[in-house]
Amino acid sequence: MRSRVESVCAAIGPLDQAAMEAARARQPQLTKPWGSLGRLEDLAEQIAGITRTPIPRLGARTIITCAGDHGVVEEGISMFGPETTPAMVLNFLAGGAGINVLARLAGAEVLVLDVGVAADLPEHPHLIHRKVARGTNNLSRGPAMTRDQAWAAIAAGIDAAEMAIDAGATLLGTGDMGIGNTTPSSAMVAALTGEPVARVTGRGTGIDDAMLARKIAVIERALAINQPDPAHPIDVVAKVGGLEIAAIAGVCLAGAARRVPVVVDGFISSAGALLAYRLAPAVQPYLIAGHASVEIGQRVVLRELGLQPLISLDLRLGEGTGAALAFLIVEAACRILAEMNTWEGAAVAGPLVADRPSEDARSA
Amino acid sequence: MRSRVESVCAAIGPLDQAAMEAARARQPQLTKPWGSLGRLEDLAEQIAGITRTPIPRLGARTIITCAGDHGVVEEGISMFGPETTPAMVLNFLAGGAGINVLARLAGAEVLVLDVGVAADLPEHPHLIHRKVARGTNNLSRGPAMTRDQAWAAIAAGIDAAEMAIDAGATLLGTGDMGIGNTTPSSAMVAALTGEPVARVTGRGTGIDDAMLARKIAVIERALAINQPDPAHPIDVVAKVGGLEIAAIAGVCLAGAARRVPVVVDGFISSAGALLAYRLAPAVQPYLIAGHASVEIGQRVVLRELGLQPLISLDLRLGEGTGAALAFLIVEAACRILAEMNTWEGAAVAGPLVADRPSEDARSA
Repeated sequence: MRSRVESVCAAIGPLDQAAMEAARARQPQLTKPWGSLGRLEDLAEQIAGITRTPIPRLGARTIITCAGDHGVVEEGISMFGPETTPAMVLNFLAGGAGINVLARLAGAEVLVLDVGVAADLPEHPHLIHRKVARGTNNLSRGPAMTRDQAWAAIAAGIDAAEMAIDAGATLLGTGDMGIGNTTPSSAMVAALTGEPVARVTGRGTGIDDAMLARKIAVIERALAINQPDPAHPIDVVAKVGGLEIAAIAGVCLAGAARRVPVVVDGFISSAGALLAYRLAPAVQPYLIAGHASVEIGQRVVLRELGLQPLISLDLRLGEGTGAALAFLIVEAACRILAEMNTWEGAAVAGPLVADRPSEDARSA
Repeated sequence: MRSRVESVCAAIGPLDQAAMEAARARQPQLTKPWGSLGRLEDLAEQIAGITRTPIPRLGARTIITCAGDHGVVEEGISMFGPETTPAMVLNFLAGGAGINVLARLAGAEVLVLDVGVAADLPEHPHLIHRKVARGTNNLSRGPAMTRDQAWAAIAAGIDAAEMAIDAGATLLGTGDMGIGNTTPSSAMVAALTGEPVARVTGRGTGIDDAMLARKIAVIERALAINQPDPAHPIDVVAKVGGLEIAAIAGVCLAGAARRVPVVVDGFISSAGALLAYRLAPAVQPYLIAGHASVEIGQRVVLRELGLQPLISLDLRLGEGTGAALAFLIVEAACRILAEMNTWEGAAVAGPLVADRPSEDARSA
């Protein structure tokens, strides 16, 4: 499994500069003032570079919702019991969860990857069975999993992403389901960035002050007991991470290796993206931050990754919901580049002065 | 015309509290943690209150792009010449402008309202002819228009919105086209709020420092010469406003009176919304701020209106582009409320503790 992951990491190349330049050069030809569509213009350029296409168009798109359970739930750090993880997976398969609603709106398919749910799940065309373990061990009392399990979970994410791409996906989104999974996410982010636990730990599904204090103490104990080594990301995810978080890293890596843009959902997905980035920094330009989560730890990750979220609507649901909404913005960016008239084509007079205003105007 | 506008203002009622409470009460029954979809939940509640429907669904939707010209362009305050206004209207009608691309993505129709373009425009099913004047007068040398013209322009916006609603629109978006129109927008906002001109004046389509300094001086001269009375909004729009800005106010008022939500686009639209608000404060809860514009004056307006934008992507194109993108968020909010499974329906165990976490968790 490790060699599988490492070969995918090695396959990630740089963005295509020629395609990016062509996309950038087209924007001032479109019937709008220079730079007036802001981040939509940057995004179209990024997609051009990822897909090696000067005027990219999106086809099918897939949200991969990675699911797993967490032994640490026994410490009383979540509003929900572990039985909710498999029940929500069934809800995803029935099409009734938040991610289903928003994916339908964005014209996306939802694939669920079971990489660690602590229950048996049925056969279903949208469910990929790659259970590495029936949940992790309680990370506040020892390692959450073995390193082999961590590699296997990342590989499962890679395989799920490749399956989606082989089936035609031109845009991937990450998602998560796992009761208790903000706890390993915060632990991983604290370990990988060196930030104090309290600065990267939030209220998850809505715990109160007392539970938050307990959650922070649990994570601090996990770090003290396990001593994860920030120089070895696989050590960090094995000791204090989660199976679905590892799988999300795999989705990021496979998307990048196959030149398919990956929209990263909220905090848990960002922790997975950070793991991917530490394994292969070349993954960074293939990632798009879908939304700014309410979870405070996400800010730290996005700063580390150099990503700015597309949407900020105080979401904290996970599942891929923020990524699905952001798909609409990515689609808008591509359509603008492809579908707008040019000044010449529309016979509209362009700016009086110059296509490219001076630096001070551009930085306005 | 004045009585027409005043009767619409008088017809605006409060939001339906019962429908809002029903919408709010449904959110914790849906298969997600309490409050986890943030502003999407607030938005669904607002739409419920506007439409008097506990579980609102959106049908047809329309962007009304109001177009007019500005005598002040002769002062050299824009990157584009006035011939671009009618040319862009033709571009809208041909479907090749930014607003067309984003409206298509959002499943919306674009109606163009000519309330003051300084050129003859053709017959077209998507163009409403209600020219009040062939552009305004140069507001830095005297009043931009008469009060009668201002009332007529607002009435034209009302009529266009009512036409769209009669044709089935369940969601309206405002938009603008008018070379030079950030200048009257800044002038109106300065006059109505008392903010210094420099704090509400930006670079429009991308002018440089020298042009920006001239633009500020032009607006200061306009205010000094015309002495608009902030206590009389119609005096402000007549002396230093624009015909399409007045029409946008009319769209806001008519949407509110007919209980149809109105998504306000960027800076010019926000200036129009502020005019509507000063004419009829009851319009406020019917408005949704589509996006945060790059234009600095918009912040001042949104603070005054108590609105928080849904999207922030550094856009400054106008036309209704930010409103069209925001339509997708409004749609998402309504679909979540209508389409998600309930805990009971999905047979998923809800939160362990309580549906409604304590205040400290909710404000997290």
